[in-house]
Formats: sequence, structure tokens, C-alpha cells
Amino acid sequence: MIRIALDAMGGDHAPSVVVEGAVQAVLKNAGKFQVVLCGPQAQVEAELKRLNYTGDAISVVDAPELVAMDDHPTEVLKRKQNSGLVTCVALQKKGMVQASVSAGNSGAMMASCLMILGRQTDRFTRPPIGCSVPTRKGRVVLVDAGANVDEKAPMLVDFAIAGSVFAECYLGHTNPKVGLLNMGEEEKKGPAVIQETYQLLKEAPVNFIGNIEGRDFIAGVADVVVCSGFTGNIVLKMLEGFYELHQEFFGTIDSPAGKKFAEMWDYRNTGGALLLGLNGTGIIAHGRSDAQAIEQAVLVAYQFAAQQVPEKIGQKLAGIKDL
Amino acid sequence: MIRIALDAMGGDHAPSVVVEGAVQAVLKNAGKFQVVLCGPQAQVEAELKRLNYTGDAISVVDAPELVAMDDHPTEVLKRKQNSGLVTCVALQKKGMVQASVSAGNSGAMMASCLMILGRQTDRFTRPPIGCSVPTRKGRVVLVDAGANVDEKAPMLVDFAIAGSVFAECYLGHTNPKVGLLNMGEEEKKGPAVIQETYQLLKEAPVNFIGNIEGRDFIAGVADVVVCSGFTGNIVLKMLEGFYELHQEFFGTIDSPAGKKFAEMWDYRNTGGALLLGLNGTGIIAHGRSDAQAIEQAVLVAYQFAAQQVPEKIGQKLAGIKDL
Repeated sequence: MIRIALDAMGGDHAPSVVVEGAVQAVLKNAGKFQVVLCGPQAQVEAELKRLNYTGDAISVVDAPELVAMDDHPTEVLKRKQNSGLVTCVALQKKGMVQASVSAGNSGAMMASCLMILGRQTDRFTRPPIGCSVPTRKGRVVLVDAGANVDEKAPMLVDFAIAGSVFAECYLGHTNPKVGLLNMGEEEKKGPAVIQETYQLLKEAPVNFIGNIEGRDFIAGVADVVVCSGFTGNIVLKMLEGFYELHQEFFGTIDSPAGKKFAEMWDYRNTGGALLLGLNGTGIIAHGRSDAQAIEQAVLVAYQFAAQQVPEKIGQKLAGIKDL
Repeated sequence: MIRIALDAMGGDHAPSVVVEGAVQAVLKNAGKFQVVLCGPQAQVEAELKRLNYTGDAISVVDAPELVAMDDHPTEVLKRKQNSGLVTCVALQKKGMVQASVSAGNSGAMMASCLMILGRQTDRFTRPPIGCSVPTRKGRVVLVDAGANVDEKAPMLVDFAIAGSVFAECYLGHTNPKVGLLNMGEEEKKGPAVIQETYQLLKEAPVNFIGNIEGRDFIAGVADVVVCSGFTGNIVLKMLEGFYELHQEFFGTIDSPAGKKFAEMWDYRNTGGALLLGLNGTGIIAHGRSDAQAIEQAVLVAYQFAAQQVPEKIGQKLAGIKDL
């Protein structure tokens, strides 16, 4: 049975919505996985009691220390080993769970996963964030969604490789099309590092379709969109901002199209972003997560663990050590 | 009387919509400016006749050569001096018009403006594109919207200075707030060049408010958004793509909010982007421009010329030669 560790104190509305999300996840997916809630035991158990949950698909591991959103990542790792966040990843390292999820301090989650689980390649400075993003043709993978900056070309190629496995295993894209986010379609467009990446991607073990522009991204031309963490973060937050503006203008429009649009763009249906290139599955959920978002993040974690996505990424990356 | 030169053969739907746009512009703004249409004389005059325009606010200068969208910019400048595009800028250099507008080959328009009008500072490789972009709080200036790549920090500071004059003169923002587009608000976030730019902007003669994220951009937190031409181009095309998707889902929603949203995001209300840091006003209109978009581009050109935006930018840039 796959077990998912969930940081009970992570996110703006913890622990209540986190525990609610866990309960919903196990009730709707009975027999598939178990959730291990890591947090202050009495408090977490009180939430379970409030929700009348008495099943055996959820267990609690006591982790009384609290991580603040502005705690320095490496300090958390050093001084708050009994926090829910660090406990999740430590359990995973011991093989007691197969994935970890936190909606808390994302820098601390990244540092914990990096230091405790370890990286699959030295070419990554930090594990790139892979995030599924809605487009006209369905969900695609954006990588890096915000972990790295000033990447060299071979690292961007690794993003493409890791993103392709993500798109194949999680989104079901066969031989996923990889697009390099750029300001034009021509080979000679864009910053020097992007032009260099273009040449490397032509030789890389991915289905490279060339440069894609901002409009193509939204149109869903590529299944995997490769860019710097800097660009990815800006793009992702801009889409979030645009959707929020849309909601402010119209709310959820009461029509089939309106429901489909909301379903596409509501961040809660994303569930969480995956830290790629690590020896294991670490999921960063949105700090604003409500119960539905947490439920989705747990599901995502389950799917990654069940399909051994990190292992598959590791195999692909190992094959190109000589970039 | 201010005169605007308009490339009659520029854009996907030239010359018909271009001439229509010119006629609408002069009819709606009688006595403010004149338009000089540059293109094959007989063809342009036939369009004017079709539209029954017989006033004296439009004149035609014969420019029989045609520029294709894939013509190499510098080749256009060398070999197609009798094209509408090059003729516009040449007339401006001679002082016969005060601004030039083309919806044609934007690389050729940029090269022509750069080579014929000349640049105001050697810190610009290419003139950055300033573009007004809708936000929750109204229009703001994005600079660079796609001309440059791999900019050094001092050049990004110049973008901020030029963009501030743009925002003040054209959009009416007093002491416009300058935001540096980044992946986080903290000073130490982002690529090395962005961190360096942050430090320079603190000392620059602009109203620097710090880093802004993608969501802040859409929220309208800054009046001037500074970024690389690479980032600006991606962001702008992504917004265009998102709005197109919205239109595909809903069309223009028949309500006051729907009309306001459409008015905000319809590219035709932007009219054109300004090439900044040149000795004169050069406007690049969207290749897909219809008559309404051309009319708006002519109006934008008029406003820049009337308010001497390029001269004011030049004065500000001259003051910081020692960056």
C-alpha cells in the first residue's frame, strides 16, 4: 500500500483544511493509499474527531514544531526537525512513506527534499519545479516553474527530459512534444542561452518541436514547456493574476463554457507542483490551499509515487551524463 | 500642424484598412493633425476615392516598392528606399512629418527608425519597445516588449527612465511607479542581472517601487513594468493568447463588465508600440491591425509627437550618461 506523508501544519489554513483534504482524499480513493498526517498529535487528532473520521487509512505522527512562512529554509532543516514538514520527508527517506506533500514554506520543503532525499543529477542546482498548467488543448507541463535562475543550457535540457517523463506518466501524453519558450519561432531568436539550448535539444532524447511563443503556450501547442525558473514563475503568476481578474469581472459564468473555463484555471485543480530530479516524490502545494486543493495534491502525490515518476526521470537523466 | 506619416502598405490587410484608419483618424480629430500616406500613389488614391474622402488632412506620397513580412530588415533599408515604410521615416528625418507609423515588417521598421532617425544613447543596442498594457487599475507601460535580449543592468535602467516618460506623457501617470518584473519581491531574488538592476534603480531618477511579480503586474501595482525584451515579448503574447482563449469560450460578454473587459484587452485599443530612445517617434502597429487599430495607432503617434515624448526621454537619458 502506498503511503503519502502530509504536512498537517502547512499552508494558510492549516491544520483544519489540510486534515479535511486528507479525509476527502482517502474516502474518495478507498484502498488505494494511506495518508500519514505529520503535526502536533493532539491538534491533528482533534481535527479528525471533528470530521468524525475513524478509519484506518489515516494515521498521525507527532511533529510538534511549527515552521513559519518566513523561516529560512536551511534553518528549518537544522532546527525544526520535529516539524510536520521535515518529519514527512524524513519518513520518506526511511521508506515508511512513498511521497511527501506540504502547502507550507516552499523554500523549506525544497531544501528538505533536496538535502534529505538527494538529487539525481549534479546538473541541477535546485530541483526544478514541474507544474501542470491548463491550455486550450488540455494540461501541459511547465518546467521550471520557479526554483532556478541563470540556468546553463544543459540544465534546461534536463528540464525537458524530466518534464517529458512528468507529462507522459501524469498527464498521459505519449511521446510528449517539448517546446522551448521563446520570443519567436526561429532558431536564432532569443537570449544566447536559449539559442544554445535549442541546439542541444535537437540532439536530446526528447520530442523537441522547436521554439514556442506565449500564444502557442496558451494554445497548447507543446505538452512540455521548457523555460528558466525565472520566466516560468512570472508566466505562472501572470496567468493566475489574469484568471483572478476574470473572476473579479465575471465570477464563475453559469454556463457549460463557464464551468469548463473555471475548471481549467482554478488553481485547486492543479493540486501541487512536483520537485523534479530528486530521489523521491516531493510535492509543493499552494499556500492558499483549501481542502479541495489538498485533496488534489495528495492524489497527485499518489499518482507520482504509484507510477514511479522520480525513478523513471532518474533513469532518463542517467543516460545523458555526458551533456 | 503635426503631420503623421503612415505606411499605406503595412500590415496583413493593407492598403484598404490602413487608408480607412487614416480617414477615420482625421475625420474624428479635425484640425489636430494631418496624415501623409506613403505607398503606391494610384492604389492609395483609389482607396481614398472608394471612401469618398476629399479633404485636405490626408496627402499621398508615392512609394511604389513593397516590403514583404520576411524581408531582412537591413536589406529593406538598402534596397527598398522607395517603399512606404522607409519613405515614412525618411520624410520624418527631413522634418516633413513628426512621427511614423507602420503595421508592416516590424524588424524593418525598427531598423529604419534606428538607422535614419538615430539613437539617443549608445546604451541601447536596439530601441526598446514600449507598449501600453491593460491592468486592473488601468493601462501601464511595459518596456521592453520585445526588441532586446541579454540586456545589461544599465540598459534596463534606461528602459525604466524611457518608460517613465512614456507613462507620464501618454498615460498621464504622475511620478509613475516603476516595478522590476521578477519572481519575488525580495531584493535578492531573481537572476544576477535583475538583482544588479534592482540596486541601480534605487539610485536612478525614477520612482522605483521594487520588484513586482506576475500577479502584481496584472493587478496594476506599477505604472511602468521593466523587463528584458525576451520576458516582455513572452508575457505580452501570453496575455494576448489568454484573451483570445477567453473570447473563444465566451465571446464579448453582453454586460457592462463584459464590455469593459473587452475594451481593456482588445489589442486594437493599444494602437501601437513606441520605439523608445530614438530621435523621433516611430510606432509599430500590430500586423493584424484593422481600421480601428490603425486609427488608434495614428492617434498614439500624434500624442507622442505633440507632447514631444522622444525629446523628453532624450533629456532624461542625457542626464545619466555616467551609469
